Amino acid sequence: MRTDALNYAKTHRDDYLNDLKALLSIPSISTQSEHADDVKAAAQWVAERLTAAGMENVQIMPTGGHPAVYGDWLHADNAPTVLIYGHYDVQPVDPINLWKTPPFEPDIRDDYIYARGATDDKGQMFAHVAAVDAMLKSGGKLPVNVKFLLEGEEEVGSKNLERLITSHTDLLAADCALISDSHILSPTQPLAAYGLRGLAILELAVRSADHDLHSGQYGGVVHNPLTALVEILSKMHNENGTVQIPGFYDDVLPVSAEEHALMEKLPDHILEETGAKKLWGEKEFSVHERTGARPTFEIHGIVGGYTGEGSKTVIPAHAFAKLSMRLVPNQDPEKVIRQFTDYVNSIAPDTVDVEVRAFDRVPAVLVDRHDPAIEAMSAAYEASFGNTPLFAREGGSIPVVLMFQQHLGIPVALMGLGLPDDALHAPNERFYLPNFYRGIEASIHFMHEYAE
Amino acid sequence: MRTDALNYAKTHRDDYLNDLKALLSIPSISTQSEHADDVKAAAQWVAERLTAAGMENVQIMPTGGHPAVYGDWLHADNAPTVLIYGHYDVQPVDPINLWKTPPFEPDIRDDYIYARGATDDKGQMFAHVAAVDAMLKSGGKLPVNVKFLLEGEEEVGSKNLERLITSHTDLLAADCALISDSHILSPTQPLAAYGLRGLAILELAVRSADHDLHSGQYGGVVHNPLTALVEILSKMHNENGTVQIPGFYDDVLPVSAEEHALMEKLPDHILEETGAKKLWGEKEFSVHERTGARPTFEIHGIVGGYTGEGSKTVIPAHAFAKLSMRLVPNQDPEKVIRQFTDYVNSIAPDTVDVEVRAFDRVPAVLVDRHDPAIEAMSAAYEASFGNTPLFAREGGSIPVVLMFQQHLGIPVALMGLGLPDDALHAPNERFYLPNFYRGIEASIHFMHEYAE
Repeated sequence: MRTDALNYAKTHRDDYLNDLKALLSIPSISTQSEHADDVKAAAQWVAERLTAAGMENVQIMPTGGHPAVYGDWLHADNAPTVLIYGHYDVQPVDPINLWKTPPFEPDIRDDYIYARGATDDKGQMFAHVAAVDAMLKSGGKLPVNVKFLLEGEEEVGSKNLERLITSHTDLLAADCALISDSHILSPTQPLAAYGLRGLAILELAVRSADHDLHSGQYGGVVHNPLTALVEILSKMHNENGTVQIPGFYDDVLPVSAEEHALMEKLPDHILEETGAKKLWGEKEFSVHERTGARPTFEIHGIVGGYTGEGSKTVIPAHAFAKLSMRLVPNQDPEKVIRQFTDYVNSIAPDTVDVEVRAFDRVPAVLVDRHDPAIEAMSAAYEASFGNTPLFAREGGSIPVVLMFQQHLGIPVALMGLGLPDDALHAPNERFYLPNFYRGIEASIHFMHEYAE
Repeated sequence: MRTDALNYAKTHRDDYLNDLKALLSIPSISTQSEHADDVKAAAQWVAERLTAAGMENVQIMPTGGHPAVYGDWLHADNAPTVLIYGHYDVQPVDPINLWKTPPFEPDIRDDYIYARGATDDKGQMFAHVAAVDAMLKSGGKLPVNVKFLLEGEEEVGSKNLERLITSHTDLLAADCALISDSHILSPTQPLAAYGLRGLAILELAVRSADHDLHSGQYGGVVHNPLTALVEILSKMHNENGTVQIPGFYDDVLPVSAEEHALMEKLPDHILEETGAKKLWGEKEFSVHERTGARPTFEIHGIVGGYTGEGSKTVIPAHAFAKLSMRLVPNQDPEKVIRQFTDYVNSIAPDTVDVEVRAFDRVPAVLVDRHDPAIEAMSAAYEASFGNTPLFAREGGSIPVVLMFQQHLGIPVALMGLGLPDDALHAPNERFYLPNFYRGIEASIHFMHEYAE
C-alpha cells in the first residue's frame, strides 16, 4: 500500500506540479486588504482540491478575518489521527522591480519553481495534499486518520486562528500535528526543527513639531523626529549586537549540553546563503544558538519625511519605525514589550514625544524531541531524503505550533521541505522541485510510520 | 505716478487675487517627472501674464530641464535696472491626507489663501508681476528698468540656472536683483534677510546581504542594514545637537558684534510656530545664530525594508537615508561632503558596505547690508508695512542669490513677504493675503525708491 502510493505520486508528478502552479497564481497576500478576495479565492481552490483528493467534510471556515479550510478522512479505525496544518496566504511582493519573473506567474528555471509563496507555504503545504491524494487514489485508504487545517492568516500573525481552534477542539482533536513550513539544510540533509522563536511586533513613533517644517527655517532649533528616532533605535544594540533593553535576557534559558551537541552538528552557510560580507551578532554564542535560542531586535522599516523621487528638505512632524523582536522559550512577550517601552521612555530625549504600539505577540515554543511523531518524521525523512535529520531550533515563528500544544495538547512534527536560500519573504522566492516530490513521499512515509 | 500705481493696485486687488488663484491651480511640482508638463504650463501662464502686464521681449527659455521665463521693460532711460527673480515650481504635496483642501485648488479662509506654492514662491513672485502691471496700466511707465527672470527648478536646486545665467549675462545685466522668497516676522514687522545658508543634498546607502532576508532565519547573525544605518546616523549629533563630523565647523566664521546686536532684536516664536514642546540644538548659540549662522545636518527620509500596511518581518538587503546639510558662509560644500564621507567610512561597521552619494551643492551667501538696493528695500518695507525691517540671516537656501553675485556682480535685495507659519514645504501651505497686497505696494515703492 505504501509502495503503491509512492509509485502513484511519482507517475503523477506533473499533475501535482500543475496543481501547485495554479495555487501559486493566486495573489493571496493577507496583509494587504486589496487582496482579501484573492485570499478567499485561494481558500476556495484549496477546499476544492482537498475534495478532489478524497477528503471529506471539507469546509471553508469563517474566522472574522481571512477564512480557514478544513477537511478530514477518518476511516482508519483505531489508527492514530494526524492533523496537518499549512497556510495559503503569502507575504507582500515588494520590491516588485527585483523579481525576475512576476511573483504570481510561476516560472520554472533549473529545477526551481519561482513564485511568491512557492516555499512559504503553498508548496510545502500542497505536498501533503498531494500525498493524501496519491494514497487515496492508489489504495483507496489512508494508514492513519487525517485532518487538514489550512489557514489564510499566517503571514499576519494567525490572529483569528486561536479562537478557531479553541472553538473547534473536538473537530480538530488529533494525536499529533504535522507541519511543513520550515527549511532543511540541503536537498539531501533534512532538518528536524524542534523549537521556534516567538515574536512581538511593534511600532515606535516619535513626534516633534505639530506640522512638517522647512529644514532651512527650523534646522538647528527643532529636534528632527527622524534624528531622535535614529538616536533612540541606535541604543537597542551594543557593538557586539547584544540587545541593550534592560532585563531583555532575564528569562532566556541556557541551552543544555545535549542541545549544544546537536547544534554543533549543524553546518553554517550563512555568508554563502545571504551574500553578507561578515557575520554580525553576539560573538559569545554560536550562529545556531543566535538564530534559534537567542532573542533579537530588528528594524523593518522607517516611515516619515520624504522618500520619493528627488529631494525634499523637510523636517517631518512625525516619524515611526516598524519593529519586531524574536523571542525564545520562557520569554513572556508582554513583559518584553513592557521592558522595551520602559527603556524607550528612559532614553527618549525630552525634545520629542514617543509612543510604543504593540501588535502581534507570539511566545516561543519547544517540542519534545523523543515523541513518536518526531520519530516518525525522522524515519520519513530518512526514507525520502536518504539521511536522518539533524536537529535544530528554527529562528522563525509559527504561532499555530504553540496553539496546538496549548489547546489540543498534541505534539507538533515540523517536517520542513524548504531550502535556506529559497528567498522566502523576499523577491524571487522559490521552491526546489526535487524537495517538492520528496516532500510528497515523506508525507506518505510519515503516515505509514506513525500508524505502526 | 507712485500714488496712481498704488491706487490702481488697491482697486484691482480682486483681479490680482484671481490671477494668483489661476497660477496656484497648476500643479508645477518640479521634482516629480510626471508633473513636467505642469511646470511647462506654469511657465506658459507666467509668460502670458508678463506680456499682459506690458512687459516686452517675453520668452520661455529652454534650460535642459524645466524652462525659465524672461521679460523686460527697458524704457526708463538712465534709471538703474532691477532684475526680479522668482520661481513658479513648487514642492511635492505629500502627506496629501493632511491637507484640509486640495493643494492645487486654492481656498481662502480667514485672510489666508491655502495652496501648494501660495507663499513659496508663486504668491511672493506674483506680487512683483502685479506691481509692474499696476505701474504700467496706471502710468504707462516704470521708474526703473525692469527685467524678470522666473524659473521652474528652484525646488530641485536650480540645477540649470547657473548655465542659463552665465550664457545670458548681457541679457540679464542689472544694477541689483530683487527677490521675494523668504519670510518676515509678522504682518507688521518686515525682515531684511541679508544672509542665506547653503545646502548639500546627500544620500547614505548601506548594504548588508545581497537579497532581502527573513528576520526569523537570519536575525541575530546578519547585520540589518537599517540597524547599521541608524547606528551610523545616530553618531552625527551629540546630545547638545552639535554635529560630530570631524572638521565640520572648521571654516564657520564667528558672528560679529554688530550682527549679534541685530540678532538680539529678533523675536523668538519657534515653539508657537512649530508646536514643538522644547527647543533643540546648540545651547551655546542663540536660536537666530543657530538657524542663520550655524551649519546643520538633517535626515529627511529613510528608505528600505517594509513601510506598507500591516507587518513584514524582513531584514532588507539595502537601506538608505535622504540627507542634507545646511551650510554657512565660508564653508565649501565639497569639503564638507568629503568630511562627511570620511566620517561615515571611519564609523561604519565592517559588517556592511556604505556609500555616500552627493547631489546638489549650494554655498551660503551674505549680502552687504548698506547697499542702495537694501536701503531702497528698507524704505519700501516701511512705506508698505509701517515699520523698518529688522535684519536677519535666513536659514534656507536660494541658490540664485549666489549666482547673481558671482556671475552678474550685483547685490540682491531679499524682500520676503511670507510669514513664519505659512507651512511652506508642508501640508496646508498658505499666504497671508494682506501681505500679498502689501507686497505689491512694497514692490511699487522699491522701484521708486531705487530710482531716486
